[in-house]
Amino acid sequence: MLKNGQAANLPAFLAMNVVTTANRLQAALPPGAPRILRMEVGQPGNAAPLGTRRAVATALLTQDAMGYTDALGRPALRERIAAHYQDWYGISVDRARIAITAGASGAFPLVFLAAFNPGDRIALAAPYYPPYVTILRALGLVPVILQASAEARFQPTPALLDQLDPPPDGLIVASPGNPAGTMLHPDEFAALAAWCAHAGTRLISDEIYHGLNWDVPLSTAADVDGAIVVNSFSKYFCMTGWRVGWVVLPPDMVQPIERLLQNFAICAPHVSQVAAEAAFDCHEELQQNLLHYKASRAYLVDTLSHAGFARLTPAEGAFYLYADVSHRTNDSVAFCDRLLRQAGVATTPGVDFDAANGTHFMRMSYCGKVEDMREAAERLAGFR
Amino acid sequence: MLKNGQAANLPAFLAMNVVTTANRLQAALPPGAPRILRMEVGQPGNAAPLGTRRAVATALLTQDAMGYTDALGRPALRERIAAHYQDWYGISVDRARIAITAGASGAFPLVFLAAFNPGDRIALAAPYYPPYVTILRALGLVPVILQASAEARFQPTPALLDQLDPPPDGLIVASPGNPAGTMLHPDEFAALAAWCAHAGTRLISDEIYHGLNWDVPLSTAADVDGAIVVNSFSKYFCMTGWRVGWVVLPPDMVQPIERLLQNFAICAPHVSQVAAEAAFDCHEELQQNLLHYKASRAYLVDTLSHAGFARLTPAEGAFYLYADVSHRTNDSVAFCDRLLRQAGVATTPGVDFDAANGTHFMRMSYCGKVEDMREAAERLAGFR
Repeated sequence: MLKNGQAANLPAFLAMNVVTTANRLQAALPPGAPRILRMEVGQPGNAAPLGTRRAVATALLTQDAMGYTDALGRPALRERIAAHYQDWYGISVDRARIAITAGASGAFPLVFLAAFNPGDRIALAAPYYPPYVTILRALGLVPVILQASAEARFQPTPALLDQLDPPPDGLIVASPGNPAGTMLHPDEFAALAAWCAHAGTRLISDEIYHGLNWDVPLSTAADVDGAIVVNSFSKYFCMTGWRVGWVVLPPDMVQPIERLLQNFAICAPHVSQVAAEAAFDCHEELQQNLLHYKASRAYLVDTLSHAGFARLTPAEGAFYLYADVSHRTNDSVAFCDRLLRQAGVATTPGVDFDAANGTHFMRMSYCGKVEDMREAAERLAGFR
Repeated sequence: MLKNGQAANLPAFLAMNVVTTANRLQAALPPGAPRILRMEVGQPGNAAPLGTRRAVATALLTQDAMGYTDALGRPALRERIAAHYQDWYGISVDRARIAITAGASGAFPLVFLAAFNPGDRIALAAPYYPPYVTILRALGLVPVILQASAEARFQPTPALLDQLDPPPDGLIVASPGNPAGTMLHPDEFAALAAWCAHAGTRLISDEIYHGLNWDVPLSTAADVDGAIVVNSFSKYFCMTGWRVGWVVLPPDMVQPIERLLQNFAICAPHVSQVAAEAAFDCHEELQQNLLHYKASRAYLVDTLSHAGFARLTPAEGAFYLYADVSHRTNDSVAFCDRLLRQAGVATTPGVDFDAANGTHFMRMSYCGKVEDMREAAERLAGFR
């Protein structure tokens, strides 16, 4: 048999294994049995807004050939995203700095390739979104894990970065973050950006959960010198399966990313770019979704705080609750599996997100339907 | 300013620059002036078949949430592709070996990562599809260029491979090939597969132009032990901008590619997977397209053979003509640029595909509308 490459041994994204198990258990249930409730992935319970689907149906049945777009994306969509920065953040972003990608997933490898060289060290706080580390490793880059604390709401701090000598070549931040659902407050975000500027560290800001914040205001790196912003239509805009996202680039990285897109992607899916443009006119429907998330969040936090899941991180953003369950288990994989089989609630063990402490944590996503999340809260509270 | 990575300096895919220039010239033409005729990219003049667009419109306006699919793709689509191997090639392929990707572009980086390690040497014949080399370089792999001959119709041969010591870790073949439009005949394909098996070289067969062959039968590596097949819905199925393709994997590479997909893509665009499944029911419309390509090919070959473009490679497949224009220029970039500006025909200089000899060659794509291709033949014949 031929040898495979080292990357053939990179880890799975374990949440996906929970999906598979939950699907199998659901399929094996007798008719009429209570359904498995899904809290294991960050996939909104709602489909893409109706306006996006109508726009695509119209484009398809009329004239649009849906051929290759420019490598950087449809100009009208890039323009619309630039306007979005004015609308949401009150800052002016040149549309020339925006590139459309196949989701945030399609952005990270190209951003890392354009910004770093093999052996470069990229810092990020644990717990983290697992593909960051897998992609970095696959490309010969070195992830440097900062073990973040509950006191810092599992976000990186200048003090943690100060311990690195020499300073890292890059820093990945995510606010709101996955899995912890916490945010960098504006002063904290500014302090990290200043630290990076001083150290010559490239700041990469994953802003995929922007729009899903409840009390803390959003901070963007779109106006931070040299920083790269990665964003997506998957979460706030409910367009997971469409695979469309964007990056905001420093001016000197636009041409490198354009070339990498030509070679690695040709372009993001045309049909999804058409849908994404229409999504900006669907805020009313999307705001309804936010009300649902807020209701689910309030009910879950209230219910779980009085049950066996009281050690929750502050649910500041995204649609995740991250629970310290160390008083109940030393093995979150077994604990989540028992929870799935006995209570019919699918959640994700923390080991996916944190190799050091993840055995004591679990993640619950509350972006499913409100009635499911309410029922899940009851089942979780009753779980022994 | 922060440093960029080495990959920031990788080359553009030059054909895309011709697109930009042709677009600009077209926009600047006075009303009523003859249009620029487009032969510079391999994008079919026809949109995706009507059946695919109807299937998507129906799915969008009814129930389908278009969320994430399995990382390997929708089971129904993988099943349909497996059946396609029975239909077209008379071979049985387990659907478990099939993974759906965001076009062939979405497949190559993951296939290279799963199969090779940094420093591994991957052979391919020049002239070649430029992103092969750019992607290999970006991933720290070493492209080994075999300078193919007109006598071998610009395809690799065992004799060329015998000159490599040690044998390469991989070999990329493409039949029909881009840019030369030639094919490996069945005995030649079998000889290369045998050479790879003997040498322990991983065979990667780019079959994106399958279905676009005129006289020579297709050879697939789907039943070659250890080989990887990359294919796409972009060409025969006319779905360029949809970004959907597939790979056929050796059984031991399915899980590695599944993991890489989870981390690098999550999944291929759901909407495009729905469209792709419907495309298999659209052969009637697609066969009509083939008749158009055949008509354009016949007219172009006949006309150009009696004009200043007589040194054409055999137009065996894909929708490309590759012309040796060394009797007219030593600088195909300048020649193609003059052709574009003076005759209004956009073509691609060979330098994109062959660093050594490309200055003497040019590529013409004949997948545009029949009437445009006929007019292009006249303009080319009259060009001095």
